[in-house]
Amino acid sequence: MILDNINYPKDLKTLDIDKLNTLANEIRDLLINRVSKTGGHFGPNLGMIETTIALHYVFNSPVDKFIFDTSHQTYTHKILTGRKEGFINNKVTGFSSQKESEHDFFIMGHTSTSISLGVGLCHARDIKNQNENIVAIIGDGSLSGGQAFEGLSNGGALNSNFIVVVNDNEMSIGENYGSLYNNLKDLRESNGECEHNLFKSLGYDYLYVEEGNNISDLVEAFKKVKDTNKPVVVHIRTLKGKGYEDSETRKEKYHYTMPFDLETKELINKSNDENYIKITNDYLINRAKEDKNLVAITAGTPALLNPFRYECSDKFIDVGIAEQHAISIASSMASQDINPVVCLFSSFVQRAYDQLSQDLAINNNPAVILLFNAGIAKNAETHIGVFDIPLISNIPNIVFMCPTTKEEYIKMLDYSLNQNEHPVVIRVPSNVKNNEGEVLDIKLNKFEKVISGEKVSIIGVGSFYHIGKEVLEKLKTYDINATLINPRFVSELDYNMLDDLTKNHELVITLEDGLLDGGFGEKISRYYSNKDIKVLNFGAKKEFADNIELDVLYENYNLKVDNIVNKIRENLKK
Amino acid sequence: MILDNINYPKDLKTLDIDKLNTLANEIRDLLINRVSKTGGHFGPNLGMIETTIALHYVFNSPVDKFIFDTSHQTYTHKILTGRKEGFINNKVTGFSSQKESEHDFFIMGHTSTSISLGVGLCHARDIKNQNENIVAIIGDGSLSGGQAFEGLSNGGALNSNFIVVVNDNEMSIGENYGSLYNNLKDLRESNGECEHNLFKSLGYDYLYVEEGNNISDLVEAFKKVKDTNKPVVVHIRTLKGKGYEDSETRKEKYHYTMPFDLETKELINKSNDENYIKITNDYLINRAKEDKNLVAITAGTPALLNPFRYECSDKFIDVGIAEQHAISIASSMASQDINPVVCLFSSFVQRAYDQLSQDLAINNNPAVILLFNAGIAKNAETHIGVFDIPLISNIPNIVFMCPTTKEEYIKMLDYSLNQNEHPVVIRVPSNVKNNEGEVLDIKLNKFEKVISGEKVSIIGVGSFYHIGKEVLEKLKTYDINATLINPRFVSELDYNMLDDLTKNHELVITLEDGLLDGGFGEKISRYYSNKDIKVLNFGAKKEFADNIELDVLYENYNLKVDNIVNKIRENLKK
Repeated sequence: MILDNINYPKDLKTLDIDKLNTLANEIRDLLINRVSKTGGHFGPNLGMIETTIALHYVFNSPVDKFIFDTSHQTYTHKILTGRKEGFINNKVTGFSSQKESEHDFFIMGHTSTSISLGVGLCHARDIKNQNENIVAIIGDGSLSGGQAFEGLSNGGALNSNFIVVVNDNEMSIGENYGSLYNNLKDLRESNGECEHNLFKSLGYDYLYVEEGNNISDLVEAFKKVKDTNKPVVVHIRTLKGKGYEDSETRKEKYHYTMPFDLETKELINKSNDENYIKITNDYLINRAKEDKNLVAITAGTPALLNPFRYECSDKFIDVGIAEQHAISIASSMASQDINPVVCLFSSFVQRAYDQLSQDLAINNNPAVILLFNAGIAKNAETHIGVFDIPLISNIPNIVFMCPTTKEEYIKMLDYSLNQNEHPVVIRVPSNVKNNEGEVLDIKLNKFEKVISGEKVSIIGVGSFYHIGKEVLEKLKTYDINATLINPRFVSELDYNMLDDLTKNHELVITLEDGLLDGGFGEKISRYYSNKDIKVLNFGAKKEFADNIELDVLYENYNLKVDNIVNKIRENLKK
Repeated sequence: MILDNINYPKDLKTLDIDKLNTLANEIRDLLINRVSKTGGHFGPNLGMIETTIALHYVFNSPVDKFIFDTSHQTYTHKILTGRKEGFINNKVTGFSSQKESEHDFFIMGHTSTSISLGVGLCHARDIKNQNENIVAIIGDGSLSGGQAFEGLSNGGALNSNFIVVVNDNEMSIGENYGSLYNNLKDLRESNGECEHNLFKSLGYDYLYVEEGNNISDLVEAFKKVKDTNKPVVVHIRTLKGKGYEDSETRKEKYHYTMPFDLETKELINKSNDENYIKITNDYLINRAKEDKNLVAITAGTPALLNPFRYECSDKFIDVGIAEQHAISIASSMASQDINPVVCLFSSFVQRAYDQLSQDLAINNNPAVILLFNAGIAKNAETHIGVFDIPLISNIPNIVFMCPTTKEEYIKMLDYSLNQNEHPVVIRVPSNVKNNEGEVLDIKLNKFEKVISGEKVSIIGVGSFYHIGKEVLEKLKTYDINATLINPRFVSELDYNMLDDLTKNHELVITLEDGLLDGGFGEKISRYYSNKDIKVLNFGAKKEFADNIELDVLYENYNLKVDNIVNKIRENLKK
């Protein structure tokens, strides 16, 4: 194996093209075998093996600096920069990290930032009178994010070396949308020679590589632009998922995968459990039959809207990776009596804070936003879902709801789509639970007292309502019959109910599946802060927890039932 | 006067071009006279009079829908849509508002949103099978904001009517930066015919109007594109500040103006008071002499960096309206031992939340961000400066400081630029106060106890420290000798000091010049929530307060000293 002798970029500089091709094949086998076992970004990495080899062959990393956008295409880069063993043993992270290697410069997990970060490195280089190459590698749908354009426009005005490699695999996570991608298509189809060229219009020199999985062509192209003294775009056409038949043909499915069997193509831990994506799609498909003004919107994460997008394709809008645009068109459409439902991952909604505040909240248009993957979970530090409550609940006018069960979620969807007063955000739970009794009607900013007790009141938000219930059961063993409240809303408090609690409770605890700082519990603490009732807030600590097991996080955050019960008992009057 | 008979768009449809020109002159006189008296957006509105007349002449508002980006160019639109008297009497707002008129569709104050909002209206129209024209009017620097590009790319893929009017006055608030503007320049210089055309590359038809202040040319152009069935850009070259000699030549100064004398050109209420912009610039100019790696960055608000930008032009970067890019390059440069200082208005920093969190905080690079115009003030609802503490203080890793005096501010600048551990945000106060004693050294997350008292402890954040001092004085008249604390930091608490307070205090009050929800005070309330000490949090209510007088806001928010003192006395043990 050639790969056995390759540990650092210098090791491949002496290889000829044939050997580099063999190396690419060996790496491809390694990637397919490892990622099928561990899960990870499959298609994006398989498409970029040759590019990464060619980059390291031509440039001199880490003096020359590579910034891989989103850094979900860096597996080959990791293998070639001293992290082969770590990659094989699944010890290195799925994203780039300067903590891992001097060949990485940033921890990156959200898209569209590489060009700006590259421009920053160019400014730093120029200030220090250095002359290294700065190479931003962007693509796989990232180019449509607004920041990429801010970066392109500012980068295009540099009077010094700046190389942008546009990896054009004709895909985002799903298909690409927007006229930007039509231009890439025109460029591909004309071998880079069509009349209108976005990159040239922004001042870049431009080079097209039709065979973006051909190392020889890539090496030639990179040699041409190396040490350029002005901004240049190298537009390379690659095949996402290259090297495994199923991922070449089913690109979206294999963008990111859980562990799967290479022969049968089946997921190892296939779950047939009901899940909230299915529940959401069933609901929307059903509602679309009666509501001709219903529209579902996503920003580059269309899997959230399978199968709605197929069954109701005329009511489905994917704006590509462009969360700001998604929120603004939703507000705009809602102002015209259209009923838009925006489906986003919790971690990505923060990319549109200004639009949530300005275009949506100030205008108070009744768009509906559903947030998935919210809450404490084992996640890359760039994809944590604990920040959405502080982010959104402190914006005026937006109604933010946290359902506890499937039935309540559906009731909240009905409520949201049937009203015309406010923008609504619903935090979709991760695990499906069913309501025990009938779901009460939703009344704006009214909490639900599910169990009436005394002494201790437990306010359990969304998915943590169920932890609250466990706590309540456990407290019974200490002869404490607690009250249990489902607040339903995290954007405003139910002051009547809170006042009422002061009559026969000495302690209120809040449980939220998110950050304590700026969150829901602090609002309760503030309200009670001058009253004769104690409060304990439970939730996540302010930190970027990186791939920490859920069990450890719960331990660290004092979220285990026994721990909560102990804290309650410590805080009761003797 | 022709204007006497013009109240609605229908009134100008019968006028000939000569009369329209006379009308433009009359409106120009009105604008110059009114805005010089009341203050407001001067240059942007003077440049757009002819365009607005031509738009209303050709299109059929409000069936056809205009969306003016940022809506700071809508004075003529207001005059022509039933709000002439309100404009003259200064009763209508400076921005568009659907509450004022059916000819407005959105409240808009931040830039770069009009194209997305327009695309949303297109989707709504197409769903409803209507056929009106949707016209987004963008320019004056707004085009460089990332969302504008997200909108352009999605709008360019529409298969229906969408008209984007690009008002190219060669300016933002200040000069324009970025290769986008180089392309506009090339287009201007080639009468719209140069080889590379950004808009055509994004799928738009394209029309160039060289004389963008000539009604006849504009009418002709708009007639050409009216009822188009595909996306089109009308690129018009206008003169910012047209009609008043000084504003034509000094475009940046007259972008927005306070009331001024038309003859002498002097501001009516000229202040020679020391201010924090001057203090900041003096500091940076001085520091730049010794620190060759210092760089100051702004995003389209270069006035914050006068006179630094002139004296240290090689250390000054204006990225144009592109806050996301500004934060990311700062983080990137800081990772390379450059010392970037980003100067932004509080209300605009929220446009870069994702970059603050991902590119800056997760990477923990020691960039410094200075926020101006933060705090409770009379402001348009789109420009409120009360959200920055909830927004930023709840992001891990970022150190957020609030100085109380000029001397402390300088100490904090020194501290921030001399450390290499964390990103730092400093909330620049509005009014200059001087420190009474020597400023203590900054120690990370350590509060400063300025006056040691008992029973009541006052924690006054930043500019509200001084209210705290007044409260303390007033309390003395009731024989209460309170403690006074300057917390300095709002991102973390000084637990030792907070614990210490419990010994001889029964009440802690927090005073912050910002939103209560998600803010600093709530962190204090949470910390004390299970302890035998009461807390009262004072700050702004969660609302978009629109142009409310400061005195009324303080009244509404219980921030008057007497009120605070009363609340304290009510909450003390009898």
